[in-house]
Amino acid sequence: MLSKDDLDRLRVPTGKRIRLKDYATSWVQANGGLDAHKVLVKEGAQEVLKRTLQELSEAQQLLFANDSWAVLAIFQAMDAAGKDSIIKHVMSGVNPQGCQVYSFKRPSSEDLSHTFLWRSQKWLPERGRIGIFNRSYYEDVLIVKVHPEWLGLQKIPSELCGKTFWQDRYDDINAFERHLTRNGVIVLKFFLHLSKDEQKKRFMERLEKPSKNWKFEAADLAERAYWDEYQEAYESALNATSTDWAPWYVIPADQKWATRVLVADILTSTIAKLKLRAPEPTPAQRKSLEEARKKLEKE
Amino acid sequence: MLSKDDLDRLRVPTGKRIRLKDYATSWVQANGGLDAHKVLVKEGAQEVLKRTLQELSEAQQLLFANDSWAVLAIFQAMDAAGKDSIIKHVMSGVNPQGCQVYSFKRPSSEDLSHTFLWRSQKWLPERGRIGIFNRSYYEDVLIVKVHPEWLGLQKIPSELCGKTFWQDRYDDINAFERHLTRNGVIVLKFFLHLSKDEQKKRFMERLEKPSKNWKFEAADLAERAYWDEYQEAYESALNATSTDWAPWYVIPADQKWATRVLVADILTSTIAKLKLRAPEPTPAQRKSLEEARKKLEKE
Repeated sequence: MLSKDDLDRLRVPTGKRIRLKDYATSWVQANGGLDAHKVLVKEGAQEVLKRTLQELSEAQQLLFANDSWAVLAIFQAMDAAGKDSIIKHVMSGVNPQGCQVYSFKRPSSEDLSHTFLWRSQKWLPERGRIGIFNRSYYEDVLIVKVHPEWLGLQKIPSELCGKTFWQDRYDDINAFERHLTRNGVIVLKFFLHLSKDEQKKRFMERLEKPSKNWKFEAADLAERAYWDEYQEAYESALNATSTDWAPWYVIPADQKWATRVLVADILTSTIAKLKLRAPEPTPAQRKSLEEARKKLEKE
Repeated sequence: MLSKDDLDRLRVPTGKRIRLKDYATSWVQANGGLDAHKVLVKEGAQEVLKRTLQELSEAQQLLFANDSWAVLAIFQAMDAAGKDSIIKHVMSGVNPQGCQVYSFKRPSSEDLSHTFLWRSQKWLPERGRIGIFNRSYYEDVLIVKVHPEWLGLQKIPSELCGKTFWQDRYDDINAFERHLTRNGVIVLKFFLHLSKDEQKKRFMERLEKPSKNWKFEAADLAERAYWDEYQEAYESALNATSTDWAPWYVIPADQKWATRVLVADILTSTIAKLKLRAPEPTPAQRKSLEEARKKLEKE
């Protein structure tokens, strides 16, 4: 659905500094610029989403059958931007055996006794799988950068906390992601770009609707006070770590249906680009299939 | 014990191509060039080793008490070069709570479903610990390079197995080790440099002495047939991955006592360079210690 131009508009370019405020948080603002708008108006967003999710499910089956490529999709955003809901709605059509979701909470003391990339390792997708990170090692250049006092918990020797500290972290992330992509893990990173007004609306909903009360945490409101610092941390991180091998996409997140349709489309079209087909049996396998067939027929 | 010049002689320089055959496998050849020879002749190798191991034990205690730095020591070598025996003799004086040894065997199918650096992650030392890798991710640029047919087991998409494949692996290793060192893990890499004659002697011993029979594996002899290919693979790997942050040391391995004394000295002096001291209590901690003392006295 998204044209090449659309993807360019959503993707953070490498080697060029972007400002987050130049990216729309709302589909209504963004649509003028996106070719996909016409498709959605013509066919209806629900219809397009349904079709895309069907394609995603098929793409994931081929990924699984080929057992060679993997996909890692990282979701980062301010609270209430819809990370959980997008994972639920986009991935629920996909065979759970081929999909691994991991939600990053506070690091454990074992995590803190290692480097900041360490705790992600065990949740990396195996070949043939789609791995979803709900938050990720990027928290270590986002929330930890906004609250540098938390860095103390990581017990890094103070001699190593010099001027290049954050840049080193960006570089390490880039090198790590390049390693993944060189070995067949496709890395896609989505920043769900929410406006401050829309966050307020969603928080209010959580406070007012009894069925949504459980989603509200006082800590989320405390973090809202650091809105500008977070936007700055995101902007720096996106600029420093959107690479040719692991690009960031800025997804307007004020309308949930738009977030879903955009993410589903990018995921699906990325896997489609691999042009996977069901693996052809080798001559030896074909022979063994033939023998198995004969054996079964004789029963 | 080793002088700065000695260390320079044993360390593989960065940005300069070395040839393995220019490095001695025997202390007898190497001693003429090493200042440490005089120390050993004067004091006796056993005495020096005993003293060094005592220092290593104390250094490790400080590492543990400070809970900030970690050390990763990687051992790579041809079969029978003494990896197991050096780990046994050098590390056995060290508190096992502060030391984690991991011996790399054949990768599991879960390992093979991830990138080649993946399986090492869970064995990385926590802060305050010395981690020992008996073999390591370097096997993926050594044995796998000598037997490229084994690469198939890693199921990497064939599109990604191009001309820069091995160089990419070296680069990924360098970036990974830089990440470790930036976060407080000191990386030391030891290549135990054995002569082909000495390997034959040690294999014969394993065949002749009933008490050593269990150490002999026919596969080891099969690999001996690839001696030159291995030397070449080691030479390339050492040249490509001896960095300022994670240097390789070529340790003469034809005499086991010499291997031990050299490795113990490098390990100990590296930790000593951190100039660690027992952590001083903060004023708050001092107050709490004082209160605890009073409480105990009243009992």
